[in-house]
Amino acid sequence: MLTASPDLRRYLTGFASSFGFVYTDAQESVFFTDPRYAEGARAALKNAFIAVEVAQSEETVLDYIKSKKIKTLAVPMERVSLPQYAALKKRRFKLTDSMPALADAMCFKTEEEIGYIAKACEIAERAYADLLERLKEGMTENETAGLLEYLMRKHGAEDRSFETIAAFGKNTSVPHHAPGEDKLKRGMPVLLDFGCKAGGYCSDITRTFLFGEGGEENEEFKTVYGRVLEAHLIAAENIRNGMTGMQADAYARDHLKKYGLDKFFTHSLGHGIGVNIHEEPRLSSRSGDILRNGMVFSIEPGVYFEGKFGIRIEDSVTIENDRVRSFMKTEKGLTVL
Amino acid sequence: MLTASPDLRRYLTGFASSFGFVYTDAQESVFFTDPRYAEGARAALKNAFIAVEVAQSEETVLDYIKSKKIKTLAVPMERVSLPQYAALKKRRFKLTDSMPALADAMCFKTEEEIGYIAKACEIAERAYADLLERLKEGMTENETAGLLEYLMRKHGAEDRSFETIAAFGKNTSVPHHAPGEDKLKRGMPVLLDFGCKAGGYCSDITRTFLFGEGGEENEEFKTVYGRVLEAHLIAAENIRNGMTGMQADAYARDHLKKYGLDKFFTHSLGHGIGVNIHEEPRLSSRSGDILRNGMVFSIEPGVYFEGKFGIRIEDSVTIENDRVRSFMKTEKGLTVL
Repeated sequence: MLTASPDLRRYLTGFASSFGFVYTDAQESVFFTDPRYAEGARAALKNAFIAVEVAQSEETVLDYIKSKKIKTLAVPMERVSLPQYAALKKRRFKLTDSMPALADAMCFKTEEEIGYIAKACEIAERAYADLLERLKEGMTENETAGLLEYLMRKHGAEDRSFETIAAFGKNTSVPHHAPGEDKLKRGMPVLLDFGCKAGGYCSDITRTFLFGEGGEENEEFKTVYGRVLEAHLIAAENIRNGMTGMQADAYARDHLKKYGLDKFFTHSLGHGIGVNIHEEPRLSSRSGDILRNGMVFSIEPGVYFEGKFGIRIEDSVTIENDRVRSFMKTEKGLTVL
Repeated sequence: MLTASPDLRRYLTGFASSFGFVYTDAQESVFFTDPRYAEGARAALKNAFIAVEVAQSEETVLDYIKSKKIKTLAVPMERVSLPQYAALKKRRFKLTDSMPALADAMCFKTEEEIGYIAKACEIAERAYADLLERLKEGMTENETAGLLEYLMRKHGAEDRSFETIAAFGKNTSVPHHAPGEDKLKRGMPVLLDFGCKAGGYCSDITRTFLFGEGGEENEEFKTVYGRVLEAHLIAAENIRNGMTGMQADAYARDHLKKYGLDKFFTHSLGHGIGVNIHEEPRLSSRSGDILRNGMVFSIEPGVYFEGKFGIRIEDSVTIENDRVRSFMKTEKGLTVL
């Protein structure tokens, strides 16, 4: 098995690098990297079963594998570029896809991985609490997103886990709104979707709140907020080890349907979280993925009224002893700043 | 020609989207995107020659092209994944590589593109000036990187153009140091390599300075700083329209060689900058790329003494009327905070 993708390499070795290859067969595991990382990798992997070798290019690695008379090579097909594919075919390897097995393995988190995710969640929550104290009328979405990312790093995050979404007012109705120069005004709904990395692992959280009570225009927001919150809590309460992603999704979707809100729930209930912000399992109306103890994923029902407002409430959670345990302590009830 | 890559799509349309395809033949250019972006794209592209169509998947787009009896399709080979390649082959398109032509075209910036890059440079410099006022003993590299990114967004950047490098003390000797939890102390060298995006275009700047005079341990730093600065200025002064990347690189490298410093200049002099932070032309000891009026690139000589310190001084520049014009106004002489 040969793995070049940075995220998969990180998963297999626990070591962060911008250049490297992990090779594994029945006899050995070798991490090939360049001189910049060799020393650090040797120290970090000294207790692992992985040997570290210096390689300047993919060619060196392929020569090594070829010299072992290996005929069939498993590679993560969807991460292989055309030039890489050509290099592999030139050496006449028979290729099989390692991605399904890797994706399956990555779903199940070890205690250490759960620890990193819990830390990434805690940092994101501390930053969010700080942000609420600093949010001021006139701040732009862009500045707000930047401030939140800064606060996460101040609290020890390695980086954001994805580009922070900060949406004010009617921009909240766009599920993946790119923060712009719109300014915060009293009474506006605010949607923040953010997360960070710790130990290479991601957190993911969304909160929607009101920046001041506003007037009558927020009555509908408040009513809908209650429904979305219920949908979140019902899903979290009922998801069980052994259930499909489809069954999980249905708890939230069916609840919203009671109020005619399901047609505004335009995305899926959640996604796996690990070294990548989006991985398996998928929690959607079409997902047959089985949810199991030790998996980590998001629960994030949301409804969006174009040109008016949107609401999403998201926690990062795990299944432990057959039931959902959230990593998040941040209030999910409606916050009015 | 079919283009799916987000950066190339952005370049071809000037419109930012996370899903889309640009199709161009002798008769028409069509931007296929999903319903989330269709309205915005129609408004943004209304004066362009590009029609906007809604498509939910690549399949729809390939069906459209197939229905036009197109036989040969140009795609950016290095950006095509194996599954995409399979989908193209299934429809029996003869494939040619569009990447060289796109990369060539992208080198030459229009006035509008130069304007965006100038703005991205100005924002980065304003943020840097603010950062210097806020830098305090005890701040971590991570916090410093986060703060600089926040200040860029506060000044109107759409986002960072790459992961900010903040290195303190001996960490400056690692050219691509990942910011960690090391704390700033008086007398330390500090290296900051950062940039942001405006109008979708990148800026890139590096400054190395001393956080306080320090003592004798900084004498070598100061001497070497002068050499690196000279290397930068000599390259900027002598680079001309029509020169190769190799010739440009040699100005800096030859100057450092006079002091035996060339062996510590472990990377190339510079790289093109545009919608991507790294594009053509390449300014390196092996680059035959011809530098031309209207191109934008970095000039960034650097020397690194492992375990001691590193120095890099980088501006984003363009060639205008045959000579280099820097976008940067920030002091390049040694700063001691």
